[in-house]
Amino acid sequence: MRKVAIAGAGMTRFSGKQPRTAIELFGDAATDAIRESNIRSQDVQALFMGNFMGDFEEGQAHIQAFAADYLGLARIPANRYENACASASAAIRDAFIWVASGYYDIVLAGGAECATKMGTPLATRTFAMASDSRYEYASGLTFPGVFAMLTHLYARKYNIPLEKLKRQLYQVSINSHYYAARNPKAQYQKELTMEDALKSPMIASPLQLVDCCPFSDGAAVLVITSEDVAKKLTKKPVLIAGVGQASAGNLLSQKEYLPRIRSRELAAAQSYKMAGLGPKDIDLIELHDCFSTAALIALESLGFFPYGTAGDAVEKGETKIGGRIAVNPSGGLKAKGHPVGATGAAQAYEVVRQLRGECGERQVEGARVGMTDTLGGDGGTLCNIILKRGW
Amino acid sequence: MRKVAIAGAGMTRFSGKQPRTAIELFGDAATDAIRESNIRSQDVQALFMGNFMGDFEEGQAHIQAFAADYLGLARIPANRYENACASASAAIRDAFIWVASGYYDIVLAGGAECATKMGTPLATRTFAMASDSRYEYASGLTFPGVFAMLTHLYARKYNIPLEKLKRQLYQVSINSHYYAARNPKAQYQKELTMEDALKSPMIASPLQLVDCCPFSDGAAVLVITSEDVAKKLTKKPVLIAGVGQASAGNLLSQKEYLPRIRSRELAAAQSYKMAGLGPKDIDLIELHDCFSTAALIALESLGFFPYGTAGDAVEKGETKIGGRIAVNPSGGLKAKGHPVGATGAAQAYEVVRQLRGECGERQVEGARVGMTDTLGGDGGTLCNIILKRGW
Repeated sequence: MRKVAIAGAGMTRFSGKQPRTAIELFGDAATDAIRESNIRSQDVQALFMGNFMGDFEEGQAHIQAFAADYLGLARIPANRYENACASASAAIRDAFIWVASGYYDIVLAGGAECATKMGTPLATRTFAMASDSRYEYASGLTFPGVFAMLTHLYARKYNIPLEKLKRQLYQVSINSHYYAARNPKAQYQKELTMEDALKSPMIASPLQLVDCCPFSDGAAVLVITSEDVAKKLTKKPVLIAGVGQASAGNLLSQKEYLPRIRSRELAAAQSYKMAGLGPKDIDLIELHDCFSTAALIALESLGFFPYGTAGDAVEKGETKIGGRIAVNPSGGLKAKGHPVGATGAAQAYEVVRQLRGECGERQVEGARVGMTDTLGGDGGTLCNIILKRGW
Repeated sequence: MRKVAIAGAGMTRFSGKQPRTAIELFGDAATDAIRESNIRSQDVQALFMGNFMGDFEEGQAHIQAFAADYLGLARIPANRYENACASASAAIRDAFIWVASGYYDIVLAGGAECATKMGTPLATRTFAMASDSRYEYASGLTFPGVFAMLTHLYARKYNIPLEKLKRQLYQVSINSHYYAARNPKAQYQKELTMEDALKSPMIASPLQLVDCCPFSDGAAVLVITSEDVAKKLTKKPVLIAGVGQASAGNLLSQKEYLPRIRSRELAAAQSYKMAGLGPKDIDLIELHDCFSTAALIALESLGFFPYGTAGDAVEKGETKIGGRIAVNPSGGLKAKGHPVGATGAAQAYEVVRQLRGECGERQVEGARVGMTDTLGGDGGTLCNIILKRGW
């Protein structure tokens, strides 16, 4: 198999409710990605699109065909990937293999979502369909509840007083907002203070609103090419050094591992192995902080900190730029936003920008290797992608 | 890239409303496929699942993770493909490249759907979300209407009196029911007479109920492996000789081609080219007869008959076993059933069985090469797969 690279990346600003459709947002992001890749749209050979719930949100299933047509690409193969919040990451991973195999030279992969059209209460209920419909969703469990339970379990397992843990969780969100305030693509370009956090309404005890990512609209798209093609198109091709993906059943089936997410540990191992790299080689990580607890769990499962210590590391500043590992310099799902089907591609977009040194105030200086981490449902899908400078 | 084969295939009986979930149906079909492939379930390295609307039907999005878990495969990568009625075919095509590239040796690919849980009127409306939500669905168009218009257009373009065309369309369905009556996996194991057809209620003029495929529940799954692996597992490995896929926008954007389906002509050309074969080499075709008119259009676009003459060919018996090309010996979508996300895999299942000579009364004698043809939406996705004997 040949080496695969990202020649360009595009992303809309993430936002709350706005007037454009997911297809139009995907078109905006794709057009930017195509333009900065120095290709013509007719050079694109296939389109892989992550989208979680276009049918519920906009009455549009089979969205990828119309997205291709909107871009003037009707004719090329177009697939929709629905892997819950990891939909775009699954699309990117499949684009990787189509290019690695030599079958295609240039593929568009990314995702789009208009997650705000349903309104928040209905969205929470609808999104819960990404959990197990037989037992979890049916018993009234939605994702805030899932992560609230994981928070209690985390505190108990690692013997951390809940009040201490909650302060550490606030700091996760404070860090994210600090970076998002410096990211023109972020939904919330506003810092968050400890005072704000303390006053934040309770959602599912012990998680407050400040611990939860928002519903968002947005899109992000990558131009994925062979390394050789990318080197002709751009001076700064970003190599896809490793990809990993794994699955899991419902939470009960994961009980031996929780609050660790087994699918993450398997996916991370795959991606590290393919890249020939380990946690110590990663300069920045865009990880799946759908709830602040999820960020701590991810940091540990990915091998950045020992189990039960990620909260301490956050408090000590080790997850900030300049610390042990720069975490979510984009603002993460919490503050950049979480348009479900776009999130994995937006994580890759940030890593691409960081590796190229284009992130201004929130730049991770000298970043050479970055990673993405995208969780679907309550562990049902986990995708990791390791990107590195190809110049 | 290395050669790819199907080592085994499994399929549930297709049916109307029944008590099992899409996950359970997928599990049944996958278990049969695994068993006849002489692998152990733990040998499976990835799972690719077509499913159109598990969320609307059963409240289950992200269905593939739970399908993997149900099969004891929670840990391997699991993707859901939603390409409307061509979802399973897209899943199979992606499985093909993962194996062809050398990355995986053994992959499960197929699909499942419980399309009857919503009840028919709601299902027709819901399925229309696979058409363009901006103009088509929004103006009240559903798929019976789409194919009714295509029927009028077909009659006018090729100057065929509508009454003559309708008789030819009846014969399409009569043929399908004849074969389904001999297929223990079919939803309607019952022959249809010209008298029945004439009395059939009008659905969308000129299409009557007898011209329309049913809503169905069911699943079909293939074990896809490298040729080398398949040869060790089975005496009759079926090679994936060619795959093709293309897309299109809404009907208006296809107006230069209609009633021909442009995406089909592009996809077929890809699959013929990859296989190094042409229409004259194909012994049987499982094609997308969602409406009887669709079968005529497919037969012409795939190169089996000149444009405007497929109806005559049907009347002359040229599409029956023993004729020019055996069409839908399984009973097709019309009589075998059409559980949307499973259909492409069920088509491949039938071709595998035919190539192996396992079809009893409806066997296409000496079949060496077969093809599948799966349409998503109103041309938005089209997938073709050419299979041939690997022994």
